[in-house]
Order: sequence, then structure tokens, then C-alpha cells
Amino acid sequence: MPVNLQAPSAGDLRAVRGVKLGVAEAHIRKADRKDLLVMQLAPGSRVAGVFTQNRFCAAPVTVCREHLAAKREIRALVVNTGNANAGTGEEGMRRARETCEKAAALLGCDAQQILPFSTGVIMEPLPLERIVAGLPMCVGDLREDNWLNAARAIMTTDIVAKGVSRVAQIGGKTVTITGIAKGSGMIHPNMATMLGYVATDAAIGQAALEAMIRHAVNRSFNCITVDGDTSTNDSLILIATGQAGNAEIADEKSADYAALRDAVTEVATLLAQAIARDGEGATKFMTINVQGGRDEAECRKIAYAIAHSPLIKTAFFASDPNLGRILAAIGYAGVADLDVNRIKLHLGDVLVAENGGRAASYQESDGQRVMKEAEITVRVELGRGAAQATVWTCDFSYDYVKINADYRT
Amino acid sequence: MPVNLQAPSAGDLRAVRGVKLGVAEAHIRKADRKDLLVMQLAPGSRVAGVFTQNRFCAAPVTVCREHLAAKREIRALVVNTGNANAGTGEEGMRRARETCEKAAALLGCDAQQILPFSTGVIMEPLPLERIVAGLPMCVGDLREDNWLNAARAIMTTDIVAKGVSRVAQIGGKTVTITGIAKGSGMIHPNMATMLGYVATDAAIGQAALEAMIRHAVNRSFNCITVDGDTSTNDSLILIATGQAGNAEIADEKSADYAALRDAVTEVATLLAQAIARDGEGATKFMTINVQGGRDEAECRKIAYAIAHSPLIKTAFFASDPNLGRILAAIGYAGVADLDVNRIKLHLGDVLVAENGGRAASYQESDGQRVMKEAEITVRVELGRGAAQATVWTCDFSYDYVKINADYRT
Repeated sequence: MPVNLQAPSAGDLRAVRGVKLGVAEAHIRKADRKDLLVMQLAPGSRVAGVFTQNRFCAAPVTVCREHLAAKREIRALVVNTGNANAGTGEEGMRRARETCEKAAALLGCDAQQILPFSTGVIMEPLPLERIVAGLPMCVGDLREDNWLNAARAIMTTDIVAKGVSRVAQIGGKTVTITGIAKGSGMIHPNMATMLGYVATDAAIGQAALEAMIRHAVNRSFNCITVDGDTSTNDSLILIATGQAGNAEIADEKSADYAALRDAVTEVATLLAQAIARDGEGATKFMTINVQGGRDEAECRKIAYAIAHSPLIKTAFFASDPNLGRILAAIGYAGVADLDVNRIKLHLGDVLVAENGGRAASYQESDGQRVMKEAEITVRVELGRGAAQATVWTCDFSYDYVKINADYRT
Repeated sequence: MPVNLQAPSAGDLRAVRGVKLGVAEAHIRKADRKDLLVMQLAPGSRVAGVFTQNRFCAAPVTVCREHLAAKREIRALVVNTGNANAGTGEEGMRRARETCEKAAALLGCDAQQILPFSTGVIMEPLPLERIVAGLPMCVGDLREDNWLNAARAIMTTDIVAKGVSRVAQIGGKTVTITGIAKGSGMIHPNMATMLGYVATDAAIGQAALEAMIRHAVNRSFNCITVDGDTSTNDSLILIATGQAGNAEIADEKSADYAALRDAVTEVATLLAQAIARDGEGATKFMTINVQGGRDEAECRKIAYAIAHSPLIKTAFFASDPNLGRILAAIGYAGVADLDVNRIKLHLGDVLVAENGGRAASYQESDGQRVMKEAEITVRVELGRGAAQATVWTCDFSYDYVKINADYRT
């Protein structure tokens, strides 16, 4: 079950002026569920995106990149679940393009102004005819107060829908930031089957918007992992409709930029953490914080070595303070010339290891107490610099195996 | 259950002239099992070793490196299970050294002529007094035809003991090569809690012996993975007692060298594969072969990305040909400028994917047929060079989680 995570209520997700959402049951893979979403953006909206680094990226990812590169105004996003349209070759590209064409015809714009997204099983043909049949239903459902249904429509193995809203004061105006995301397996840094859409009604220039999405993604979605598998389809989109009435933010050093950036980053971080909390089979939410490194890269290496280790994740599932496994992961993380005698390892508030071994003050009962909690922080002090990094993940349970062994059946 | 792997019988493991083995119940962690081994080597024996690259290497690994660097004649190896003596700081070093001193006193040599090895739980104090009490029992048990008991005495979560013998004709003499190994979790390239001891009675020079162990380990133990966790204690030792009566092998280009090298490599490969077959919770044995790469390194990167993916390993456990997960792993393996449209993916004898998507000839029923087998080969053709690499691994089952969640209880 998700760790300390509840689905938002409809009232929790604030409308963003200029963004309308419509959903439909297109029967793409399963019956009786919404599986198709259209997000329509008002004229003048700006859009920035970051995508998977997987070489086998899905057809819709390629099409998104092309359409963003064309620098036309994006007018709508189309998202389907049930099928990833990845590993589908030229025919997959054709179907992604045709999805855009059909949506554009319904919305009165060009295909280049549509961004397509898919998530679900890989290497099966996208059921284009079902998507085409579902699009008019989505368009008929378009409205601003539809974020919760949109969050539900993009779920795959997610147990709960993920969405969060914040407001911020920008240039004397109240702006809204609302985001939704999906994902619970195949989750890894550099984007993983993770789809995220964050929209604000703030007015912001394109360059500033692109700087903002990089800032936010590096502190949120690029800091989570469930199983280390990087998906073919990961995408995060940041939309700014400019309808809040604030003076357009162009200066990345301005107070307005900082205020909006921090609010957007908070929304992205909460969404990313929600994905780890709802990791497949998760029973614990783990924060891995590595401090005192020479640079952020080595801190991330160590944090991910811990966060990816099946041995550590199964020990957390068992609430077993088998902390030697954490030392082992630190040791094999690939950081050259690491002096293990300078490392301090904390589990929650308990000092576990120092001077290359178990801390003299450490009692197994203290470790056991921390391990029984649902939210656990592992803190590693390297003692060789001032850099730090944080990664969020979940444990590894019987249900992870069950979910992934049964996924297609 | 181990995949197509049975423990050897005592008669399967041939004595190696000059190597005596003795075991004891030292009660290091569990009752009613042999958990301490002494291997005594005749004067004139040569020894080479390769060890874990984990920065948190265990105290006995550090001591082994020191003793081998001292270039004294090694006269005995001492191996305990139940406790890894890793993450134990200075006190762990002291206990590893004292183990050597006590063994040396019993065997009439110097402590520097002893190599110590430990495997088991990390970060708990080595119960030195039990080892010291057990050593005389091991010495009293020393005999040449004791390999099977030795193989049993080094097991931890292994289900079956692992050992294999071969004979080869070298310089007109019959030489014997016998090896034993343990390990089933925390198994990864660059050595993982894997202990392996291969002995031959052939005569071979020190430099040639060291070249031979590097050749053998790179084609055997460095080609397996169970869970991607590199242990703190991995060690492989190659012993040559020189008692077979062949002219000493010094030339690494000679036919004698090649014949011995191939026999040693075969023994090491069978032992390494046995570890993957007995991987924790294993129900399938998987061979991942990546061909047509520019160099071996990129082939290994892709093979390991596949072999480490929990998503792929759980799909194999479920006998589900969810082959898109393999494409995704190829895509995120980190090989730059990979053209996914040139890749061919075979499952057993079935062509699954080409041209960036599912092969036109592929039928799900063909994939299903291969997936139901206990031994499955995944073959990836990259189509960009002549290099290749092979990795052996196992699937990821409920029992992997169970074994590792319960390990210390």
C-alpha cells in the first residue's frame, strides 16, 4: 500500500486559468476505466518539456521533441494509458503522428501544436482506432475543474491518483500551480515511466520557463527510484498560460522568478515523492541523504547505490537493520579513493557506523526502532567536502515481484 | 530451487596432490553445521588471488592482500562462514590477524603464510574465540580426499554445495584441477560474496599463474550476477602445488599453458555458473549474450543492464515474454549513439525484435514456449562491430525477497 499517501480530493486540485482537461474511456487495454486525456491550453500558453534518456525512447517522445523543437505554440496534450507505443518502429511513429492530426482537427489547430504521450505495455501496437474514437469524448468533456479525473486517467499500476496544488504571490497577483503525475514502477533518475504535467497561470518567458523545468526536475523526478529501470516514455511538462495577470517573468535572477520556481519545484517534489510512496509493492518510504561529498555527482552515486540495492530494499521491507548491506553499497558505488574510515552512517537519529565499523554507541534495539517506522531516513556523511544529494525510494516487497510477474495478465 | 544443479558426490571431486582439507563445527553462527575450513598446501605451492573491488572490503581481504604482497610461500587458507568480518574496523583487522597467528602456530609456519577468508553477516564482531577453538579440529581432519566436506563448509545461503574437477594432460603428465565455490546472493561482477578456490597439482611459474587467474576470472566469476550487489568479501584463489611432475610452465604462449588455462577456466566457469544456478530464489538460469558490439565493454554494459533489471527478472520468473522490458534495458544501458533500428533481439531461437520494434515473424506463442524453459538464452545483436560478451544470471522470485528479508533471523 502507498506509504502515507492519499489521493487528493477534487477540491484539493485548483483550476489553472487557461488549462481545460477532458477524459474518456477509450478501452485501450482495460474496460471500465478512463484511459485517455486531452489537456487544452489557451492561446499564448508556453510549454517546456524534459524526456527520457532511454535510447529506445517511445514514438510519442520523439514526436514531442520534434513538435517542441518546431517552436509553434502548443495548444493541446493527448495522453493515453494502457499502451506505451514504444518498441513499435516506424508504424508506432505513424500512429503517434496520426493521434496528433486527429486531435488537431478536433481542436482547430495544426498537428505540430499537439504533444502526444503514451504509457503502458511496450512493444505492442498502439490501438489507434480506439484513441481516435475516444478523442471527441475527451473534447466534449473539456473543463478547467477536471484535474482529479485527469490524474486518474493517466494511472497504470499506480494505486492512488497523484496531484497537488499550490498558490504563490507573484508580482502582486495570486498565481496557481497544479500538477499531476503517474508512475510507480520502472522508476529511475533521468526520467522513468513517469508522466508529469505541471501547469501555472503565471506569465513567464520561454527561456525562464525552460530554466525552471530543469531546476525543478533535478530536485524532484530525477531524485527518485523504485527499481532502477529507466522507462522509454518518461516525460515532464511545465505549462504557463500567462492568465494570472502578473508582469511576464523574464529575469531568472528576479524575486518573482525565485518565488514561482520554488512553488513549481515544491509541486514537482511532492509529485515525485508521491511516485516513490506509491512504488510497486511499497511498504516504506526511504529518504537517502548523502552529505559531505566532494561534489553532488559522487553523493548521487552513493545515494543511488543504496537506493537500488535489492539487498537493502528487502532488508527494509523486513524492518531488519541489516546495516552492513548499506556499508557494502557505499563501498561498491564506484567513488574512487573513498576513505571508509571517515564515513558516518545514520539510520534516522541513530549513529550506526563510524571508523570503518559499527559505532560503539550503537544498539541493535535502536536500529530496530527506526526500522519499524514507515518513513525512514538514511544519512551518510562522507567527511570529504560540502556537497550533498538526496534520493527518495521505497522498499522491495513480495508484492513488487507479484505486480511485475503478473503485469500483462 | 537451483536450476539444473546438483551437488557433486564425494567421488566427483578428485584429490589434488599437495592440498589437504579439514573442516569443523565451530558454532560461528548456527549449530549442527560445518562452518570452518583449513586448506593446507604442501611446500613449494604457488598461490594467486583476485579480490573484491568494494571500498568497504572486509578485514580478511585486506590481510590476504598484505600476505600475498609479502611474497612468502602460502602454506594454508582458513575460511569461516557465518560472519563476514566486514565493516568491523580496526578490531576486525586484529581478529583476522589473530586467526592467521593461531593457524600458523598449529601448522608450524608464520602468520604471513596464512590467507584468511570470511563470509556471512556484515558489521558484527567476528567470534574469534570460536574460530580459535575450531582450528585444531580442522587440523585434525586434514586429508586430501576432503573436497566435498570443504565445499559444504563454506556455504551460506547456498542450497547445494558447488565443486567440480577436471583432468588435463600437461607435458605428458595427468594433472588434476579441482575447485569449490560458494555464493548465491550479493553476486555481481568484479567479485561478489563469492568465495572460490581452485587448485591444481600442475607445476607453473608465479607470473604464469597470475596471468591464468585473470584470464579465468574474467570469463567466469566476473560474468555472473544475481542481484547486482558487490560483496565486501569476494575472493578467488588459484593454487598450484607443482606435484604432478610436469615441467614447470613459465611461457604463457606455450601449449602446456593453454591446456592448463583452458581446464582451469572451464572449472571456474562451471563454478561461476553454479552460483547463478543457485542464485537466491532462482527458478531460471539465463544466459545473456550480446554480439556485434564495437568493443567488449559496451557488450557487457548492455548484458548487465538486462541481467540486473528487476523488471526483466520478475518477467522471467513469471515465464512472461514481456520483451519490451529487454528493449528498454538495452536503451538505458548507457551506450552512446546506439542505433536501435539495427538491433536484433532473440529469445532462444526466436527472433523477437528488429527495426526498432517487434519482428514481423514473431508470435507470442513462440516467446511463451521459450519462456517456459528452465534455461533461457537472450541474444542481442547490435550490428555495429565484432565484439561480444556473455553474462549468466537467474530470475527474481518471491523467494529472493523472502530469503533476503529473513536472512538474519
